[in-house]
Amino acid sequence: MKLIRFGEPGKEKTGVIVNDKKYDTSAFGEDYGEAFFETDGLNRLSYFIEDNLLTEIPVDARLGCPLARPSKIVCIGLNYVDHARETNATPPTEPVIFMKSTTAITGPNDNIVIPKNSVKTDWEVELAVVIGKKASYVDEADAMDYIAGYVLHNDVSEREFQLERGGTWDKGKGCDTFAPIGPFFATADEIADPHNLRLWLKVNGKIMQDGTTANFIFNLPTLVSYTSQFMTLLPGDIISTGTPAGVGLGMKPPFYLKAGDVVELGIDGLGEARQVLVDWV
Amino acid sequence: MKLIRFGEPGKEKTGVIVNDKKYDTSAFGEDYGEAFFETDGLNRLSYFIEDNLLTEIPVDARLGCPLARPSKIVCIGLNYVDHARETNATPPTEPVIFMKSTTAITGPNDNIVIPKNSVKTDWEVELAVVIGKKASYVDEADAMDYIAGYVLHNDVSEREFQLERGGTWDKGKGCDTFAPIGPFFATADEIADPHNLRLWLKVNGKIMQDGTTANFIFNLPTLVSYTSQFMTLLPGDIISTGTPAGVGLGMKPPFYLKAGDVVELGIDGLGEARQVLVDWV
Repeated sequence: MKLIRFGEPGKEKTGVIVNDKKYDTSAFGEDYGEAFFETDGLNRLSYFIEDNLLTEIPVDARLGCPLARPSKIVCIGLNYVDHARETNATPPTEPVIFMKSTTAITGPNDNIVIPKNSVKTDWEVELAVVIGKKASYVDEADAMDYIAGYVLHNDVSEREFQLERGGTWDKGKGCDTFAPIGPFFATADEIADPHNLRLWLKVNGKIMQDGTTANFIFNLPTLVSYTSQFMTLLPGDIISTGTPAGVGLGMKPPFYLKAGDVVELGIDGLGEARQVLVDWV
Repeated sequence: MKLIRFGEPGKEKTGVIVNDKKYDTSAFGEDYGEAFFETDGLNRLSYFIEDNLLTEIPVDARLGCPLARPSKIVCIGLNYVDHARETNATPPTEPVIFMKSTTAITGPNDNIVIPKNSVKTDWEVELAVVIGKKASYVDEADAMDYIAGYVLHNDVSEREFQLERGGTWDKGKGCDTFAPIGPFFATADEIADPHNLRLWLKVNGKIMQDGTTANFIFNLPTLVSYTSQFMTLLPGDIISTGTPAGVGLGMKPPFYLKAGDVVELGIDGLGEARQVLVDWV
């Protein structure tokens, strides 16, 4: 299944994509969040979709993040050798973890707001996994069973806040609109091999990132298992798996986003998103 | 008001402390979370308490965290000069921010579970503030208006996970039971001067931390305003304001917690808590 949420920001309704058409599933009565995933919601929703006549959604409806707000977004840093090199970082010997404030979540085609006082707003196309059941000390051999599905994520980052303002990376990762997610959530069965997906990102039509998840330093079973050694993952939680080379920080000289710039990104099987940069007002 | 939550873990009911007695407020019908704070819940609850005959809670009832799960816990690192010195860190020139997984939250007198493979589980008594209304780019002059109240927090930390495993501090801060909070939430009016509170922590009866919030490097208006420049704070969110000297990492030689150890801690006006360490099984 491919799930969406649509409508006014903060008041999104649930939906589903079937044969490239979008349908309203709000009569199902549950948002796509922790309780939904915890109570076998994906299975129950699939029966609901089979058994009910659904209304098509206007084609121009705004898409929100396809998931309700999770308890947390865990991000993996430096998970592609080429990206570690371009940022002058040593490729890590174990996964780098940081956290992104969930207030950063926004729709896949919403504007990205350049924060007040920001001069280094940057992009990062990422494959994000969505956890399907409570995960604590999960073995790598079982880890794929804990993944409910996947989403496209732009892990927008303010490099000065992240790297030059003291403390941890979290300061440059959680600004409002810094987590455009979607267009849709794809259940795990929709993605034949998540370790062989092309992911790309363009700025103003020019390709900046063009990588493949085949180049992960740490694969998905490792990431899920590893993260679950340090914190319990709840159903609906997101792990964003890192970005390949081609971010603004890695350019010579570095290149950052300004108002009016257009970012487009996509991953095989997970659709495309398009975001316009605007200044904070 | 002094608010509590009590009962079985994950199924806590709400309550209130009046004249040192604990009463059930679950008939009010709202948990002490985001929606409650956002909709003037403190005021509405105060009328409910005046207008209704409340049932006393059994004195031996387990206390949970006095707040429903927030959208995030933001922690401030190295906010006391003496603590920065004992950990060989330079006192920061601007606040250090990291994030703690909300799955770490537990009751004030629950056991602290030493994580699997942990050898450096440590304590940190902290004053935590609870946000009362949505805060984004708040001015320092207005910042105190955004604080709904205060709680006692033990920012339990695994120093190897935090400092020796690559990446940010978040890895050593979010293990299950690493955020004992309470015994109660005190509304802001209960604390005459939050910048002059003694805070202390004992391990096995021996005083280890004995500080005062008068020694903050960055005071509360600065912390709330500063944090709100990097992420939006939601009603019910927690900012934990850092710990004074006396943590295990700072001992010579360092001293860490083991199963059977007893941690007691308190802050003027915010009560006391007591946690027993147990091994992960």
